[in-house]
Amino acid sequence: MDYASAGVDIDLEGAAVASLVGALAKSVRPPGTPGAPVDLPGGFGGLIEFGDHLLALATDGVGSKLQIATMLEQWGGVGIDCMAMNVNDLLCVGAEPIAFVDYVAVPKPDPTIHAALGASLAEACRLARVTLAGGETASLPGIVHELDLSGTALGWLPKGQAITGEHLQEGDVLIGLPSSGIHSNGYSLVRKIVEHAGLAYTDAAPFDPTHPNRSLNRWTEGKPSLGEVVLNPTRIYCNPVVDLLNAAREEGGFNIDDIRAICHITGGGLSNLLRLHPSLGWDVHAPLPVLPEFDWLQKAGGVETREMYRTFNMGMGMVIAVRAEQANTVLKWLGERMTGVQIVGHVRNHGHRVTHALEGVEFSHY
Amino acid sequence: MDYASAGVDIDLEGAAVASLVGALAKSVRPPGTPGAPVDLPGGFGGLIEFGDHLLALATDGVGSKLQIATMLEQWGGVGIDCMAMNVNDLLCVGAEPIAFVDYVAVPKPDPTIHAALGASLAEACRLARVTLAGGETASLPGIVHELDLSGTALGWLPKGQAITGEHLQEGDVLIGLPSSGIHSNGYSLVRKIVEHAGLAYTDAAPFDPTHPNRSLNRWTEGKPSLGEVVLNPTRIYCNPVVDLLNAAREEGGFNIDDIRAICHITGGGLSNLLRLHPSLGWDVHAPLPVLPEFDWLQKAGGVETREMYRTFNMGMGMVIAVRAEQANTVLKWLGERMTGVQIVGHVRNHGHRVTHALEGVEFSHY
Repeated sequence: MDYASAGVDIDLEGAAVASLVGALAKSVRPPGTPGAPVDLPGGFGGLIEFGDHLLALATDGVGSKLQIATMLEQWGGVGIDCMAMNVNDLLCVGAEPIAFVDYVAVPKPDPTIHAALGASLAEACRLARVTLAGGETASLPGIVHELDLSGTALGWLPKGQAITGEHLQEGDVLIGLPSSGIHSNGYSLVRKIVEHAGLAYTDAAPFDPTHPNRSLNRWTEGKPSLGEVVLNPTRIYCNPVVDLLNAAREEGGFNIDDIRAICHITGGGLSNLLRLHPSLGWDVHAPLPVLPEFDWLQKAGGVETREMYRTFNMGMGMVIAVRAEQANTVLKWLGERMTGVQIVGHVRNHGHRVTHALEGVEFSHY
Repeated sequence: MDYASAGVDIDLEGAAVASLVGALAKSVRPPGTPGAPVDLPGGFGGLIEFGDHLLALATDGVGSKLQIATMLEQWGGVGIDCMAMNVNDLLCVGAEPIAFVDYVAVPKPDPTIHAALGASLAEACRLARVTLAGGETASLPGIVHELDLSGTALGWLPKGQAITGEHLQEGDVLIGLPSSGIHSNGYSLVRKIVEHAGLAYTDAAPFDPTHPNRSLNRWTEGKPSLGEVVLNPTRIYCNPVVDLLNAAREEGGFNIDDIRAICHITGGGLSNLLRLHPSLGWDVHAPLPVLPEFDWLQKAGGVETREMYRTFNMGMGMVIAVRAEQANTVLKWLGERMTGVQIVGHVRNHGHRVTHALEGVEFSHY
């Protein structure tokens, strides 16, 4: 199986997005005024000017992971997923997330769902250290079959201190931050594989999901169910990445210029790294351990290894590229705050491609 | 007919939203730091601290108006609707909108739809004078039947200069700003009435839609179709309201304290005014002329007058409450920039209710 056969036409999506973007005009807000756009490679978060600061917006939804949550009536993690997808993107430009708004669309209002979403969003705000500054709940029976959840996060940073990737150079060290599970991408393929395997999400997971780099968000007793594993909430990297950025900007030991690039591993898997620089390459020669659900998904779905790394995070949800001289200092700093952080590779001048310890895992297109 | 019989259960929606809000915790961001929440009556836009400024976020979608646009394959106005619903809310707290992000959910990507949305959002950015700082297009065949479109707007204002309604007093003058049509609320009822009337949206409008306070966004030649009237884009009030706020803050003639409250007339119609003050009343004794589509909808649907004013804007999309001494100055200023602006009533100390020139149009609950 592969992602495209799960019903996701990446080319068609690309063409559709290109149509939308192509129709957009330049901003009417002139440089130097609040709201003027700031161009930045990578495109994780949209930056605008605001006096001595830059503000960043990110907007994203939870996607088809929601369908599994709705089927199981377990919405306790989806607010965290929604938050994570947005704030993790803001971190990539060096912004500190400060506020969030949610958009909920349902066929009809359901206090049970909304109470669960509220609790999940409150937990997400605590984890991401942001204010929930508003939200909208829309009842749209003619438009949605079932719950859709998206949101927008706002972040800020001092002007001139964006993480842009422009200072990346050969030899920079890649530090990998472990993921908590599948996060919020690739669920069309997950659902297809689970269906193909003839399993219910309420069945016990057909593998041992225990892993030192993460804990599971449980709602049953006993052996973890498949649903508990695949719905485990996306990791929010604000802690420790915001603190890392602040330490780099304020305290010395390492400098903000030492943090060369930050990459949120989302849909597209490792190929996301290619967004950060137009010509340099990325060699992930010492990858983080693969979480057990990915091994099972690959086997149960007969998915090629390369396709797995192009669809899923495979155990690494964020990559921070650091100047080689400071790599051990930053690694130690991060390691004191998060379990499982390790040096996973280096920036190389071997073409605009991602290479990997596993043969055949190589990407030259995002 | 009424709004509830069109399938919208306002009480259930209220209970659902209360469940969500009730589950939310206080913000973890302490007062005085970027992102700390700022409490404000009315609740149109969510305000947070940001140094010497306040930032405001608003999030909203187009709702079931989209179903008519999709049926007619006419998406040219829905980006403007989406922008308007958000930026008009920001204006109510005295914020200048500066950036916007959109969220598009479709069952599958369609370059035709996305190109139309892109063009519509570009036009909306121009009208609202904001930067499109990002967006997300999600393909969710299991979640949405057809296009859903929502967005989030970011605005700013100087600290201490929010429009809060707290200085409202008896005798303040209400200036009404004309709407361009039905805007983006009440479409469940619109659709039910059109169906009941046995009309197609491609039929010629069964009334003369000409009105000096607005022009129609046309896509046919000849007599305007019913679809062209009901899909006319929501008016974006940034021009002239942002300029009004700037003039009040900078130039003198009138002062920001003279602008006592601003109300975006959305779902709930005139009852929205009750959100602005906990005890004062609102007497709309000289209303703006009703747009012809509302007269037709009322007659064709047999809708009670009070229900019309609780569901639709009836020709007035925004109300600005101004200190009596400055009312004529502000009216003249606005009148030079927008056709059809007039004094529509006064703030009164006659209980926490809205009264109106038409008997029976009275609201004491939002």
